[in-house]
Amino acid sequence: MTPVRRASAVERVQERPYGKPETGLRLAFYRIIFEADTRAGRAFDLILLVAILLSVSVVVMDSVAGLAGRYHALFRGLEWCFTGLFTLEYAARLWCVRHPTRYARSFFGIVDLVAVLPSYLALLLPGAVAFQGVRLLRLLRIFRILKLTEYVAEYRALAEALRGSARKIFIFLSVVMITVLLLGTAMYVVEGPENGYTSIPTAVYWAIVTMTTVGYGDVTPHTDLGKLIASAMMLIGWGILAVPTGIVTAEMTALRFRRQPTTRTCPECLTEGHEPDAAFCKDCGARLPEYTRD
Amino acid sequence: MTPVRRASAVERVQERPYGKPETGLRLAFYRIIFEADTRAGRAFDLILLVAILLSVSVVVMDSVAGLAGRYHALFRGLEWCFTGLFTLEYAARLWCVRHPTRYARSFFGIVDLVAVLPSYLALLLPGAVAFQGVRLLRLLRIFRILKLTEYVAEYRALAEALRGSARKIFIFLSVVMITVLLLGTAMYVVEGPENGYTSIPTAVYWAIVTMTTVGYGDVTPHTDLGKLIASAMMLIGWGILAVPTGIVTAEMTALRFRRQPTTRTCPECLTEGHEPDAAFCKDCGARLPEYTRD
Amino acid sequence: MTPVRRASAVERVQERPYGKPETGLRLAFYRIIFEADTRAGRAFDLILLVAILLSVSVVVMDSVAGLAGRYHALFRGLEWCFTGLFTLEYAARLWCVRHPTRYARSFFGIVDLVAVLPSYLALLLPGAVAFQGVRLLRLLRIFRILKLTEYVAEYRALAEALRGSARKIFIFLSVVMITVLLLGTAMYVVEGPENGYTSIPTAVYWAIVTMTTVGYGDVTPHTDLGKLIASAMMLIGWGILAVPTGIVTAEMTALRFRRQPTTRTCPECLTEGHEPDAAFCKDCGARLPEYTRD
Amino acid sequence: MTPVRRASAVERVQERPYGKPETGLRLAFYRIIFEADTRAGRAFDLILLVAILLSVSVVVMDSVAGLAGRYHALFRGLEWCFTGLFTLEYAARLWCVRHPTRYARSFFGIVDLVAVLPSYLALLLPGAVAFQGVRLLRLLRIFRILKLTEYVAEYRALAEALRGSARKIFIFLSVVMITVLLLGTAMYVVEGPENGYTSIPTAVYWAIVTMTTVGYGDVTPHTDLGKLIASAMMLIGWGILAVPTGIVTAEMTALRFRRQPTTRTCPECLTEGHEPDAAFCKDCGARLPEYTRD
Repeated sequence: MTPVRRASAVERVQERPYGKPETGLRLAFYRIIFEADTRAGRAFDLILLVAILLSVSVVVMDSVAGLAGRYHALFRGLEWCFTGLFTLEYAARLWCVRHPTRYARSFFGIVDLVAVLPSYLALLLPGAVAFQGVRLLRLLRIFRILKLTEYVAEYRALAEALRGSARKIFIFLSVVMITVLLLGTAMYVVEGPENGYTSIPTAVYWAIVTMTTVGYGDVTPHTDLGKLIASAMMLIGWGILAVPTGIVTAEMTALRFRRQPTTRTCPECLTEGHEPDAAFCKDCGARLPEYTRD
Repeated sequence: MTPVRRASAVERVQERPYGKPETGLRLAFYRIIFEADTRAGRAFDLILLVAILLSVSVVVMDSVAGLAGRYHALFRGLEWCFTGLFTLEYAARLWCVRHPTRYARSFFGIVDLVAVLPSYLALLLPGAVAFQGVRLLRLLRIFRILKLTEYVAEYRALAEALRGSARKIFIFLSVVMITVLLLGTAMYVVEGPENGYTSIPTAVYWAIVTMTTVGYGDVTPHTDLGKLIASAMMLIGWGILAVPTGIVTAEMTALRFRRQPTTRTCPECLTEGHEPDAAFCKDCGARLPEYTRD
Repeated sequence: MTPVRRASAVERVQERPYGKPETGLRLAFYRIIFEADTRAGRAFDLILLVAILLSVSVVVMDSVAGLAGRYHALFRGLEWCFTGLFTLEYAARLWCVRHPTRYARSFFGIVDLVAVLPSYLALLLPGAVAFQGVRLLRLLRIFRILKLTEYVAEYRALAEALRGSARKIFIFLSVVMITVLLLGTAMYVVEGPENGYTSIPTAVYWAIVTMTTVGYGDVTPHTDLGKLIASAMMLIGWGILAVPTGIVTAEMTALRFRRQPTTRTCPECLTEGHEPDAAFCKDCGARLPEYTRD
Repeated sequence: MTPVRRASAVERVQERPYGKPETGLRLAFYRIIFEADTRAGRAFDLILLVAILLSVSVVVMDSVAGLAGRYHALFRGLEWCFTGLFTLEYAARLWCVRHPTRYARSFFGIVDLVAVLPSYLALLLPGAVAFQGVRLLRLLRIFRILKLTEYVAEYRALAEALRGSARKIFIFLSVVMITVLLLGTAMYVVEGPENGYTSIPTAVYWAIVTMTTVGYGDVTPHTDLGKLIASAMMLIGWGILAVPTGIVTAEMTALRFRRQPTTRTCPECLTEGHEPDAAFCKDCGARLPEYTRD
């Protein structure tokens, strides 16, 4: 549970080892496609980011009836352009890593493949056009590209807070699931199909809509007893739903107050926990070695 | 309010003493049914968990009109299977504990009985079929089975945070109840039955729907004054409803930051929980050994 | 800003000095009606609590069309009983305090008067029956009666946290008011009366309904631009509305972590901040004087 | 990231240097219009505040059909009065500062200009009347006027907490945007145009309405799979949306607990902010005097 081990776990996830080739053209391509230290690498990431956003825009606009009618040919053309581009990129990625199968089976490898497949499938099965939306999955790659920016520290802190409270949230969700199942069934018995609670799954759907305070209003209690149960659910539910906020907030507050420089030790009196900007030991007055955050 | 007393209170609740028989077959059954130290005990818990989830699935699917029509005979058969199984389990529990009445009157004893009763009642009174949903109460037993898993610590922390803030939440709810009663009545007077506020209970129901930010929209203000009051309610209500979140979060943060040195023991009087910087025992005044955090 | 001054301010509010008579029957009545140290005083508070809740129940049930039709005479009778009872109580309160006008002008004095007035006014003006709901204001007295219970400490902590953050919440509300006014007007221009945004007040009402995440759905955006603005409002609004929760939570966390025994000083080494249950100084081992919380 | 630098950054924003004239009538006007140290300056701010609120009231009331019909001439007259008043004020501001273009290009300079333009444009283009609502932008000036009150400290604390968590919130919003885009597209495919999900933008709008727990109910899932996805979205979404609350709360708690000992000064190098338990200066190693909290 030390910060050091956790941080390295994060890095391990982010730099999954597809294997860097040692020399030649493949290394040059690898540097451009997978790394961002060179100018070409950064340019590649930027172009990819723009291409992903543009291809997503095309899919989104193609779904709007008015636009699809007018610019259908344009959208179709652009779609094939992006499909070609992403296919080329996928092939290049496969080619330039040392372990292509490792990349192909990695999370982003699968995302990249799944994002181009529907277009090709649509040639064989006309119905597959509906799955063009799958291309949006490529949006997930944005997180990988953003890795390069300075926002990483913030992103890591958020991810860490969420991971740190994952177990508590899992338990919380299981309690909520059982609660909505019990209360949904109660409402199904009390209100019945004639008031919109046509089945237990529908009643559970309503209970979730109510307890998360979404409250669509497509199903609402009509009997007095139902309204009473619903009112109690809302009030108690609000109390219960304060829990995930509490979990995440407590985790974040704890992260903020965790004293980072625990590894900084005075060479004279061996006390720890000196502040990052301290030049002298606060306990014995000895000069501290220079401190460089990694 | 010391952590020690609290923890033991939790355990007392979790290991309610139905009485463990001393020898023989009853002890063997007790070990399988009530404990989870042996392989058979863990297997029993797993089978019970699956049986509960399956029986709940049957009740849920039976409520869906489409499925109930097609597989009615199957559902009916499965229902009797589970009823038989749970009846057997209930009987075995009663038989193998030393104090059967104590178990029968315990929370889970009542739940186990209530879960099988409706099926038998349905033989006498056909209308009792509607109460088959009562079987879902057995879901509560999941919490008891999960006791065995490693999630207990998290679950206890959550329960402790909720228990620690129970009083505050009770007071908070009483303030909310009076607020919604007053504001609901005001809206009943302002909007009146012609705008859907047919009675004070309905208006209070609306006030709860509004202040918890559920907002179904089945009853909404139509007059200008009503909209003004509703707007004020939402804004102020949001402020008020920030309170339970605050309560739970403060409790959780406090639990996270609760001073850990419970392991620091006075060598003279053996009291625990001395502060990290204490040099003398606060209870008997004896000198404490140096404290080094690990 | 010291806890001491604040606590006394709370007490000053709670024990507003109506003037305690010195001897005789008036003192006896004062003890019963205003204090709760004697058995009779506690009984009076309990009876008053029950009477208030009963009278509120009558008003609530009288508003339900079905019940009002059947039991109209009963409700009318009970109403006059409670009116008489509360009038007597009001008169007794006025009579037994030393400064009747001070009581009459106090918050609860006005509430007590206003609660009985509508019934008498209804004799003169038949329309005044509608204001019977005013009686519910007496519910506020519950807070005064509950003063006697052990929940006071919790209630004070809540009130203190709210008071401590009142200024921040006021500023926050002013920011929200201006935001909803600006965004509401923008939506009025974008959507216009034909989509339900009939006037700026209506649009502002919609903006409040949206930003507090109540979301009735009685007014919803229909144009694409309107939906875009609404989406941005929801996302940003959620961020803004996290602020009051943050304010209240930070205040509560601060209250929890405020170390109470700052006034407890070791008589030998003069160190401060010993724990309430400490018997010996943790710094020099000297015996501490007995500690009694007030 | 030191508090000192931050505070000065706030002040720099608040006292943007339009240039104070040195003598004469312009200085007198500058003192009245831009400063609040003199009685006339405070009076000017108060009058301006009232004028802004009144002019906003006129715009708001003019949008209500009933009022606009009856008092149209009055509203038209008042509108021209305020337009004239604000034009005069704008001219006076331009005239009395030393760098008029700097003021004209400042945020409040543009707001002041934009607020009077629509009225004049309406003379040329009758359609421009619709943009009268732009006047409401002048409400923003309220923040500038309120600068004078004692609420500034609270306002700054709020602004600082928000600024301190701006990056985290930005990242959070980007995660939410991608999530609603992916889930909205999934719902568009699952539910389709026949259930109200007419296009991907509409589906994304629905996803935002759902995940922020607004829940209008104008678009709701009708298929079983759609309801299942929606339910999962609500539950997981609630967990995700606990994040901004957590961010803001942690920031606020950190601000409250920010280590106070800024008054502890090293007698040698005069640096401040040493920890309460420090015995030596962390910057120059000199022995610090004993620290006693008051």
